[in-house]
Amino acid sequence: MGRPNLQIALDNSDLPTALAAVSAVGEIVDIVEAGTVLILQVGDESVKCLRALFPEKIIVADTKCADAGGTVAGNVRKAGANWMTCICSATIATMKAAAKEVEQIQVELYGDWTYELAQKWLEAGITQAIYHQSRDALLAGETWGEKDLTAVKELIKMGFKVSVTGGLEVETLKLFEGIDVYTFITGRGITGADNPVQAATEFKNEIIRIWGE
Amino acid sequence: MGRPNLQIALDNSDLPTALAAVSAVGEIVDIVEAGTVLILQVGDESVKCLRALFPEKIIVADTKCADAGGTVAGNVRKAGANWMTCICSATIATMKAAAKEVEQIQVELYGDWTYELAQKWLEAGITQAIYHQSRDALLAGETWGEKDLTAVKELIKMGFKVSVTGGLEVETLKLFEGIDVYTFITGRGITGADNPVQAATEFKNEIIRIWGE
Repeated sequence: MGRPNLQIALDNSDLPTALAAVSAVGEIVDIVEAGTVLILQVGDESVKCLRALFPEKIIVADTKCADAGGTVAGNVRKAGANWMTCICSATIATMKAAAKEVEQIQVELYGDWTYELAQKWLEAGITQAIYHQSRDALLAGETWGEKDLTAVKELIKMGFKVSVTGGLEVETLKLFEGIDVYTFITGRGITGADNPVQAATEFKNEIIRIWGE
Repeated sequence: MGRPNLQIALDNSDLPTALAAVSAVGEIVDIVEAGTVLILQVGDESVKCLRALFPEKIIVADTKCADAGGTVAGNVRKAGANWMTCICSATIATMKAAAKEVEQIQVELYGDWTYELAQKWLEAGITQAIYHQSRDALLAGETWGEKDLTAVKELIKMGFKVSVTGGLEVETLKLFEGIDVYTFITGRGITGADNPVQAATEFKNEIIRIWGE
């Protein structure tokens, strides 16, 4: 079992705020994500700036692409993204078209996806999935539970590299002890902290404490 | 049965090309859409420019929002959008949050949505749906068929205002004769034509021929 990555998601609504948020902690995390909110507001300039600031990091464009996979993926690749997300309700054809343009596609699991469908993604060569607690679901009072952990384990068993995200705090990580999580994604858990550098360091230290170096 | 609207979708990868495409035909169509590809590339500037150019038209931001509905919808409203799209796999909480910020939410139907789920959207006050032939599915050789028309009719019967889109040509419209389609959405059917003004006019005339003034 490897050490899970730590990914920071930038879901700010403007570029200066996003850059301020990431500038201090970008080198602490493993992966930097241009969040959907940021991309919808700023466009590919957001990805270009992150690539310029962090030339050696993995940059993810969280497009949640549902269609026109080849075009969207080609665009974010040109902007400097390594990975890109597709929404689970995108067709296999869309995912395949996107996969030709970027290094990795990550399927964002929202709503009523099925394991049968997930098997088709694997067969299409898509090996990364993102298990999500919706921000709006969290606001409605839902949180990480046994149902979520079971789903994460099942996806890993199927062969996916599984990232988990949604309302993660340092204290949440131990829920995943013993599970081969690929990446923990957090936004406000770091950027919203009083001391983001301290928060990022605490996330990283807790990951190392549980999963080792 | 009213006359269906004609909506132009701008899915260009840069703003100048999108503006050139819409400038000649914007006044012919009823609704102008900032397409997903355009928004992901250009950000909210795309919506702002369309609002500036067409102050009286309905402007749709095709965000295909999957999460953070309130934030995304607030952002596109501030940019000048009337309507916004949510992906069908978004949670009801996301759709409701978005619906508070813009005049109308349209649910984009991709993948394995169900009528049971659609009923929940109606109960949440979401009354517009977009029935889609995926661009990538079209590229893979699929086209409009009886299955699609049956689904469109069923959604209308449930109480949705249904927009249809995906590979529409002037010749395709008569397939929908007798069906109370709310809006026909086309992108390249107009912008990719040798003479876009002629193409937009032909679409509009065909709609009037079939559904009346």
